[in-house]
Order: sequence, then C-alpha cells, then structure tokens
Amino acid sequence: MSTLIDKLAVIENLKFNLYGKDFLLTSEKSNDELSAIIELAEVLKEMHRQNISSRVFDSGLAISIFRDQSTRTRFSFASATNLLGLQLQEFDEKKSQVAHGETIRETANMISFLTEAIGIRDDMFIGKGNTYMREVGSALADGFNHGVLHQRPAIVNLQCDIDHPTQAMADLAHLKDWAGGSFENLKGKKIAMTWAYSPSYGKPLSVPQGIITLMTRFGMDVALSYPKGYDLLPETIEIAKKNAKESGGKFSISNSMDEAFKNADIVYPKSWAPFNVMERRTKLLEKSDDAGLKELEKECLANNAKFKSWECDEKKMNLTNGGEALYCHCLPADISGISCKEGEVSANVFEKYRIPTYIEASFKPFVIASMILASRFRDPIATLHRLINKGRRRRF
Amino acid sequence: MSTLIDKLAVIENLKFNLYGKDFLLTSEKSNDELSAIIELAEVLKEMHRQNISSRVFDSGLAISIFRDQSTRTRFSFASATNLLGLQLQEFDEKKSQVAHGETIRETANMISFLTEAIGIRDDMFIGKGNTYMREVGSALADGFNHGVLHQRPAIVNLQCDIDHPTQAMADLAHLKDWAGGSFENLKGKKIAMTWAYSPSYGKPLSVPQGIITLMTRFGMDVALSYPKGYDLLPETIEIAKKNAKESGGKFSISNSMDEAFKNADIVYPKSWAPFNVMERRTKLLEKSDDAGLKELEKECLANNAKFKSWECDEKKMNLTNGGEALYCHCLPADISGISCKEGEVSANVFEKYRIPTYIEASFKPFVIASMILASRFRDPIATLHRLINKGRRRRF
Amino acid sequence: MSTLIDKLAVIENLKFNLYGKDFLLTSEKSNDELSAIIELAEVLKEMHRQNISSRVFDSGLAISIFRDQSTRTRFSFASATNLLGLQLQEFDEKKSQVAHGETIRETANMISFLTEAIGIRDDMFIGKGNTYMREVGSALADGFNHGVLHQRPAIVNLQCDIDHPTQAMADLAHLKDWAGGSFENLKGKKIAMTWAYSPSYGKPLSVPQGIITLMTRFGMDVALSYPKGYDLLPETIEIAKKNAKESGGKFSISNSMDEAFKNADIVYPKSWAPFNVMERRTKLLEKSDDAGLKELEKECLANNAKFKSWECDEKKMNLTNGGEALYCHCLPADISGISCKEGEVSANVFEKYRIPTYIEASFKPFVIASMILASRFRDPIATLHRLINKGRRRRF
Repeated sequence: MSTLIDKLAVIENLKFNLYGKDFLLTSEKSNDELSAIIELAEVLKEMHRQNISSRVFDSGLAISIFRDQSTRTRFSFASATNLLGLQLQEFDEKKSQVAHGETIRETANMISFLTEAIGIRDDMFIGKGNTYMREVGSALADGFNHGVLHQRPAIVNLQCDIDHPTQAMADLAHLKDWAGGSFENLKGKKIAMTWAYSPSYGKPLSVPQGIITLMTRFGMDVALSYPKGYDLLPETIEIAKKNAKESGGKFSISNSMDEAFKNADIVYPKSWAPFNVMERRTKLLEKSDDAGLKELEKECLANNAKFKSWECDEKKMNLTNGGEALYCHCLPADISGISCKEGEVSANVFEKYRIPTYIEASFKPFVIASMILASRFRDPIATLHRLINKGRRRRF
Repeated sequence: MSTLIDKLAVIENLKFNLYGKDFLLTSEKSNDELSAIIELAEVLKEMHRQNISSRVFDSGLAISIFRDQSTRTRFSFASATNLLGLQLQEFDEKKSQVAHGETIRETANMISFLTEAIGIRDDMFIGKGNTYMREVGSALADGFNHGVLHQRPAIVNLQCDIDHPTQAMADLAHLKDWAGGSFENLKGKKIAMTWAYSPSYGKPLSVPQGIITLMTRFGMDVALSYPKGYDLLPETIEIAKKNAKESGGKFSISNSMDEAFKNADIVYPKSWAPFNVMERRTKLLEKSDDAGLKELEKECLANNAKFKSWECDEKKMNLTNGGEALYCHCLPADISGISCKEGEVSANVFEKYRIPTYIEASFKPFVIASMILASRFRDPIATLHRLINKGRRRRF
Repeated sequence: MSTLIDKLAVIENLKFNLYGKDFLLTSEKSNDELSAIIELAEVLKEMHRQNISSRVFDSGLAISIFRDQSTRTRFSFASATNLLGLQLQEFDEKKSQVAHGETIRETANMISFLTEAIGIRDDMFIGKGNTYMREVGSALADGFNHGVLHQRPAIVNLQCDIDHPTQAMADLAHLKDWAGGSFENLKGKKIAMTWAYSPSYGKPLSVPQGIITLMTRFGMDVALSYPKGYDLLPETIEIAKKNAKESGGKFSISNSMDEAFKNADIVYPKSWAPFNVMERRTKLLEKSDDAGLKELEKECLANNAKFKSWECDEKKMNLTNGGEALYCHCLPADISGISCKEGEVSANVFEKYRIPTYIEASFKPFVIASMILASRFRDPIATLHRLINKGRRRRF
C-alpha cells in the first residue's frame, strides 16, 4: 500500500489536463499526459493485484460500439469498465440505422443519459473511423452543454484507421516495465516495427501507425521496415519524424527486415495491408462491390506471397542486440506451422516469448480504465488516494 | 438535497398502491398513481444530477424481452435498471421456443429465480402484445405464490399493441416540466396528436394511443387528427373520451392537421399505420405470407403518399398558439431532406426543437426506474428518503 | 439468521478441499465435497430469501461459453454470478476462432485478466466437451503460474459429453429437501432414471449419466432403464457400479420402464440418444456431412418411434411407491398433447408435478454460486459467516 502511495506521489509531478477529454490519438496528448495514463494504469493494476477495490462508479453504463470484430479489446473494455463499477452495454449498430450527420448526433445522446464511457472500434474505412469518433464526441458535448446529459461520457478509441491507442499504450506500459519501470530507460533503445508475412489480407494499419507515432515520443530509435509498396498513412510518418526530432530519438524507414532487426532491443513484426490497398478497399466496400473485393484480395495475397521471407525466425532474432531482443505482438500472431503454414513468426521464437506477449496484453484493461478515470475525474490521483486509504477489498 | 426532501413530501399526499403491480397500461392506474410515478421519476433524475446513488439493489437481474427492434427503449431500460443496481440480461427469444400456453408459464419462472424486473416490447401483433405480458405476469404470480420464486418481478410494458406507457409517461414528465412543474398548469392546454406523412409503413399505433389515453387524464384539450382511414384501436378512443369527460378536459377527432394545430400549445405529429392495416398485417405475418405482406406494403405506401401535405412545417407551426407550440416526438422523426426526402417534419422546425426532443427522451430512463421502484418497494418514498439521507455518491 | 449460522456449523464438520479447483465432474469430488456444495447452496438460497446480500465480489467478470443453445442454464449462470457480484460477459465463440491447441491457451488468458469464473457448455461431441474444459483449465493455470493472471478463475461445467453436474447437483439438492433436508434420508430410496420417448433426436446423455453417477454416491437404489440399444457412455456405468458398492446403495440396469418404476420413490423419465448414435453424429458433424446427419436423424426417429410406450403416465406412476413417487425432470419436458403429440410424460402427470419441477430448477443458480464460492474462497464458511453477520440487505 505504501508503494501505491509512493507511486501516486510520482504522478503528482506530471502536468496533465485530461479531464473531460476523449482519448482518440496519442499524438494529441502531451508526454506528461501519456506518462500519467501509464502510471495510473500501473496503480490500478497493482490495486487489482493487491485486492483493493477501484470501483469509482456506483452505477452508470459503459457502451461499446464495435464496427469490426474483436475478442481481446472487447474483453479489455468489458474488464476495464467493470473494474470501475460501470455496466457494459454493447451497441449493436446496423450501419443504416446510425449513419452520419443527424443520426449520430441524436443516437449519441439517446444512449448516453446515464453513460460514463463509450469505447469505439471503427478501423475498416480509411478517413472515416477517427472522424466518426469525433462526430460522436461533438454530439455528446452538444447534449451536455444543452443540459440534455448530466455528464459528458468519455470516448476511448478502441482502434481506428489512424491509431490503436489502447494497444500502443499497453505496449508502452509493457516496454517500460521490461526496461525496469522507467521511461528514462527507454531512451536510445531500438525498436524494429516491421511488416511480416501473413497468408491473410486487409489487416489494419493502426498498430504499426500507433507504434511509430508513440514510441518516437520517448527518445527511442524506431526502425520501421516493410516491403516496397506497404506504406503507412503518410501523416503518421510525418508525426513520427517530428516526434523523433523533438524527443532526441531516431526514426528510420527501410525495406529490409534484417536491417531493422540489426541490434534491435525490441522487435514488433506484424502484417498489415498497404495504405493504398486499404483506400481501394474502402471504396469497394462503400460500393458493396463484391467482385472487386475478391479481385483485390487475390491480387494482395499474391503480392504478400512474394514476401514470405519476412518471417521472424531464429536467424533474424540472432541479428538483434545479443540475440535477445524482446519480441512484441498485439496478438493473435500468425505462427508458422501452428495457426498457418507460413506466417509472421516461427513457432520456436513465438514459444520463447509467448508468456511475455500475454503479459504485454495484460496491461490493456488497466490502460483503458486509466483513460476513463482520467477523463471522468477532475483529480484522479486524489480519487485513487481515497480508494487506497479506504482499502475496500475487491474480493471480500 | 432539501429540494429533494421537499419533493418527497409532496408525493406523500398522493394515494397510490403500486406495490407488486405491473405497469402495463396507464389506463389501469389512478391519477394519483400516474402522478406518483412522474414525481418519483423526477426525484430519481435530480438525484442522478446531484450525484446521489439510487442503488436500491445489491444484486438481482433485470430481463428485457424485445420482440421488435429497439435502440432508445433498450438503452432506457438498461440505464434504469442499472441505476437501481440490477444487471440487465437480454432474453433472446426465438418465437418457436417460447410460444403461448405451457411454455410461457415455465420459461417465465425459469428465468426469474433472481430477477426483480422484466421489460417487454411486443408491439407487432394486434391483440397479442399486451395479452402476452399478462400471461407472463400470471405465470410469475403463480410461481411466487407457490414458493418457486422468492420475489415477484415487476413487469414493465416497453411498448405493446395498445399502449407505450414508458414513452407517454416520459412525454408527460416533459410536458409537466415545460408547464412549470405542475400538473395543474396542464389543464386546458391544447395538444395536437396528429398523423404525419412518412415514406415507411407499419409504424405501431401505441404512441398516439398512449398519448390520447394519458393526456386526457390531466384536463388537457387533446385534438387527435389523421387522414380518413388511419383510425386507432377503437377501445383507446373510448378511453380517451371517458377520460376527457372525467377530467374536465376535451377530446376531439378531426381529419385536418390544420384544425388540430390551430391554437395548439403542444404538437405531436407522428406517422402510424391504420388499425385495420395492422390487423391484416398480423394475419399475414402469422401465415408468413411474404407475397401478401409485400402487396400490403405497396398498397399502404401508395395510400400514405396521398397525404404528403401532413408535414409539420413552419406554416403549420404558425397556426399554433403564438406560433410557438412545443413540438414533441418520440424519436427518431422522419425529417424532410435529412432522414428522408419528404417526411413528418421539416428540417427547420425539427432543428428548432431538436434539443427539447432530446430532453423529452431524457425522462424515459427515470420513468422506467420509477415504475420498478414503485412496484418492488412497499414504501418507495421512505426508500428514497433513506437513500438521500445516506447521500452515497454515485460517482466516487 | 440463527438458522443460517447453525447451518454453517454443520458444514464445518465436512472435509473439503475445493479452493482453486474446477467443478468438471461430480465423480472427481469426495462425498463431503459434494455435501459441502449442496449445503453452501442452501445457505445462499436462504440468504437470498431472507434478503441478505451474498455479494462477495466488488468487481470481476464471469464468462460464459455456450457451444450449444441454452436458456435455463444461461440464466442460472447469469443469476449465480450476479448474486456473487460478478458481471457476466458472454463469449460468443466462432468455432474457427478458438480452435484447439495454441489458440485455447492464448484466448483463455486473453479474456481472463479480471475474470473470476468461467462457465462452459460443450455437450455436442463425444470425447470432446470435458476435454476442452480441461484444456481451458490448464491454460488458466499456466497463465496464473507465470504471473499473467492475478487470479485463477474457477471453471464450472455447464454440461459436457460426460456429466451435467450443475443439473445433477440441483436435482440432489431438491431430493435432499424433499427427503426432509438430510442426505441420510436418501439412503435406500429408489430412483428410476429411465429413458422416455421423444419425437426429437440427439438429446445429450449428460443428464442420465450425471444422475446415475451422482445418486449412487448417497446409498440410493438407482434403477437405470432404457430400450435395448440406448446405452450410456460405458465409463459412467462403471462409475455408478463402483459408487453403489462403496455407498451401500444399489445400481441396476433393465430394459423395462415398468420394472424401474416399480416401488420407486423418485422417477426421472427423460429421452436421450444412444451413445453410439452420438459417436456417429460427432463424426458426421466433424465432416459437416449434412446428408449423413439427415440420414442418421431419420434412422433414429424411426427407432425412437418403436418405443412410444416409454411414456410416464398415470398407469406407470401407479407402479411407484404408494403411487406417489416424486417426478423429476431437468425441463423442458416433452409433454404429450402439450408440447408434442406423444412425448416423455402425460399431461396430467406433468401438471401434478409441475410446481415441484420448478422448485427442482430453482436450486441451480445457488448450486452454481456455491461452486464458484468454494473454488474462489479459501474458507467459504468464514466468508458466509462474515456476510451474514454484516447483514447487508440485498434489496435496500
């Protein structure tokens, strides 16, 4: 318990202004704000481990809107909101019912009279997902300002076309933990964010984009690498460059997995679809052009197949710092010989790092809870102080 | 807080006997009972605004049975039951599984061992929805009386073929609020409940029926108006007539939107399908006669199209009292040029009243919570007194 | 309340070691452990009746995985977990997503970071269901031992290919209650677990298997009876034989419903599919051989039809002890002339015992809650003691 109090004291040195704000992109938050979210998440995680209740809501809904399938993030959001005392209600949206314009404005208010947090996943359409979240946000602000809502629910981006902030922040918490618990120790560490082969297509860009825009904030040496043509959203590249310059870190792009892995302290090999493919796909989906979609898939799989050598195997791991880089993945990984014939990572490399990837994932519920706490409570440190002093057991 | 206590004192002057009763039709409740539900809802709403917990259940399920699609009411029921401390469990009924007779009797008990409230929407079949709710109710009473259930769950009608009491009561709460907070002020106020054009068909009758049977209770001048042929369920007309006579109000039927709007203080323009169409539809649905249903839809849309002039536009609003009648709608409205080409209301009229319609909707969760509270607690006033005195924060 | 304390004192005489263990088969538990689960369930039921909170979790998820349809067990699990303070999250598994091997191991951990209990129904495939539960269990143990999970969730078998322990234990609680509240009184009582005719096919074997393996534990005279060919899983027969020998009870198999009913104190007539049919079905399902499945169904229904005389009617009931045996069923029963033309039980027999079957079912939520409590709390008696002394009302 004294550790918890000490930890809170550290957060008091950070300047953050997260109250009433949504968490949509890490690039909109200051370094202190990102640090505060991570540190608060660590306190919540430790409280859970020590069986201290972090129930800050006696009642209230948390709503999730998944415009794409999800298991991990769905349960992370369910867990996070339950930890704080909210009841999850999934909003099963038919695209026609809640379209753009008038309807979002109305529906956002209709579901929010007693709602404290809304989590949204909308990652299928380039240029749309993050925009949609902002439309929901401004509808809620409108309702709150007009006295329709007694409170302004916090929106958490559970993956969009630009960023996957709950994933990237969970990854950051994991890296900080791995580095001995201090952001300072991450400075100069090389992380290889690389494309990897997968026998599937259309995987979103939000993870690599989230990683390069976030990890460049903390002075890391971020080496992005992918086969020619598998470009990311240009604006995220610009942000990564700017961040690296400001933080004293590095940001490089190459088309060689080996080069990225060389002396890397951390590797994050993961498949994604090229940005322009996602754009073409967005248009085909909008037109419900099934034939076109099939054609695109065929073309992409054929293209992917040229890069089967982009597999994270022992040989590649041997290129890393001491051959012992930390392997990261948002899971599920395409494991060669296990979940597919040839994939992102060899079975022996994955098995070696299996438990660490589970631990990496374990931060996500607490990161989400931290984002909600910081948005809904004016002084989240004081709130946690009171909870810790109260010391109510989570399990009786 | 003193306001809340004062408010409770007012309710003590009302005679009501709602304990152990279901809320299926407003016409079955006394004026004092209806007033009590509204006043208790207002207290719950104000407690929520003031961040005072109204959690009266430590555990317990609330079950919703939706035999028709719903967003607004679904979330209202989820919110209301969560506010009281219940966990929502949706009962996803296949029509074949829970048919009439033996099965309802059994299933109602099987799902209710730890259940405190059941919300049911069943509005598709004329003559069936309200009947179904009563069958569930008598099954629960049977189980409770035989010691199968430790408690008799409260049933709340979330829309049936006859009434939509949670909507009409939320509307009433809104009108009372608009009239300065007193039922007395509603006396003599003219409300135009009119049909309006919509490019869709098969909209239920429960809202207009709910409005004319409820608003005639409080001495209002209720002007029902619709194109020839768009009749409501005859028994609801009889109830409205009787109510108006008893309450010193008025009830009129016309076939002119202009006449209804003339000098109206409140307007409620909303589309519905004629009663006899709903009856024909019920039979076709029972026979799964898809061709017949398509034919009926075609016929009805063609008929609707004759009455496109039944749109609530500025010109019509100018006929109302001072041109400033309150526009009401249960939402979502068919807004001309926004959600459809031509619809129930013009875009400028809707925009002017958009926020008021959201506020109108905001009463529904609290009305539902009030109905459950009054049914499950012998002395709901004392219960709220204790909660207010305890003053537990809803948000820590 | 003093009754409750007295009841707890009785349980203290039992030796049980259920902490951290899953509840997968009654045959794996000692008699004292089974007794403890029943007695704790009774305490929880009585606490509910007396309006005393048994909320032992302040937050935490309960996850249900239903690989087959369910209403009763679904609501029992929802009720049980809610009673203890957990929030239910259903895991809607696509078979392809969570396959065997690597994926179970990963997914089990991914959904369990804040999870306290997991209920699984997997009864379709002979040789698979119980195995699957053990795979989930060992994945959770692996995660817990590696520090991935802060707690090891308890798994409750909500029906598998071998056993249906929550059903059989609820039945046992009902029989104990019927016998005056003492296991001792069950000694020597004859229970006829018989096949009965049903116009459907493919009903699982887990109920008769669960009954014969459990009721033979308590010195009962268990008479299993079915038409030639409708055999159960051989290993469950062996267990029943061994149990009967050890407990001083009896276990017999006949092919005559009359013989089984003769002088029976309790009858449990219920349809099931022959073991070898379920095996053939498993193989056809695995091959997605729809034609083969249809052929098998046809063959089985024709075979069932030879045994329409296996109906529990008044004439058969008259063979029982004083003509007054207790009729049991897991529900829903196939009632002749009500839910089907000819079925497991005649309408008048069922109606006579309708309420007792509802009461039989009412034990299930509390049995499940008891299983979770005993697995997640080191000293469940002390936990309940504290709850009873605290005396917090469940309904305010």
